[in-house]
Amino acid sequence: MALAYDGPVQRLIDGFAGLPGIGPKGAQRIAFYLLSASDDEAQALADAIREVKQKVRFCEICGNVCEASPCPICSDPRRDRSVVCVVEEPKDVMSIERTREFHGLYHVLGGAINPMANIGPSDLAIPKLLDRLKSDEVEEIILALDPNIEGEATVTYLSRLLSPLKIKVTRLASGLPVGSDLEYADEITLGRALQGRREA
Amino acid sequence: MALAYDGPVQRLIDGFAGLPGIGPKGAQRIAFYLLSASDDEAQALADAIREVKQKVRFCEICGNVCEASPCPICSDPRRDRSVVCVVEEPKDVMSIERTREFHGLYHVLGGAINPMANIGPSDLAIPKLLDRLKSDEVEEIILALDPNIEGEATVTYLSRLLSPLKIKVTRLASGLPVGSDLEYADEITLGRALQGRREA
Repeated sequence: MALAYDGPVQRLIDGFAGLPGIGPKGAQRIAFYLLSASDDEAQALADAIREVKQKVRFCEICGNVCEASPCPICSDPRRDRSVVCVVEEPKDVMSIERTREFHGLYHVLGGAINPMANIGPSDLAIPKLLDRLKSDEVEEIILALDPNIEGEATVTYLSRLLSPLKIKVTRLASGLPVGSDLEYADEITLGRALQGRREA
Repeated sequence: MALAYDGPVQRLIDGFAGLPGIGPKGAQRIAFYLLSASDDEAQALADAIREVKQKVRFCEICGNVCEASPCPICSDPRRDRSVVCVVEEPKDVMSIERTREFHGLYHVLGGAINPMANIGPSDLAIPKLLDRLKSDEVEEIILALDPNIEGEATVTYLSRLLSPLKIKVTRLASGLPVGSDLEYADEITLGRALQGRREA
């Protein structure tokens, strides 16, 4: 016997091993799980993959995922059109929606500036953002990027780019996560929390 | 906007979140990866899931996964029919094949005895194992079960069950993993390594 699985099993393992966050062992575990799962469960997963590729589009205005473009947020008349929250990925839209603290519109960049991965400003939805700002409707841009090197680089780039436009540009506060323990905070986070201290 | 994704995206996230080793965040990451992936890549994964459910069977003799039953190992005339290695899952067959140290046949139990999960001897391929032993061909049974509570319980159960049959019943050696560090070995493993010490 060869030291790899028979064709279909190996193809399934390879398919899962190509997904983010799944290694070869995890892929094998999932493949054998699906082998023992009911036909309905496996079929449902295969259908969900096909369906999402067929039906899901990106909103022509904000770049969020949606079934119909413009997306429900861009076409909702109750949303505040004067504030645009710039995020890296569609999943960040959902994270911010879950806070129920934001009622404006979004703009999904599709990533962050990352010279190491050869991702520059032209690879992101930045020209589209500038187009949206031409309408004079927008008064504030909230840069809600990931608090890591790539996110910081993108925030710096965008705040310089937007400064001539006389639009208020803000960014998310850095500090201690709610419910965390001061003892376990890293120095940089604690330093930012000190810099950004407020009156109690 | 609702605080869940549109239908197809949420169905895909739910589908992945139901797989072993994938949590809700990981499922979301995979779903968005597939959304941005090429149609071909997504299609290949959906096809691999369908294909494996359509084509892959379990060997009627040993219970291993295969495209044709009996499996290539059971039908290989060069394999030593006097030794049967009993494992929990089909993936364990592959792990042992990769050692290139074993040339006998396998028997896949389909799990281990686990009273907490309501898995008893009758839920495993134990009657099938006893049937195979009726032929007098088998001289040794190697119990290659996982070295955890359930595996140990199954080893104890099987060695008692097989003792009247006058077949040699062996089990895998416990001890320090090759390439590991004595300092980081847990007490039980180190104790087993001491008990099983050999002349150097």
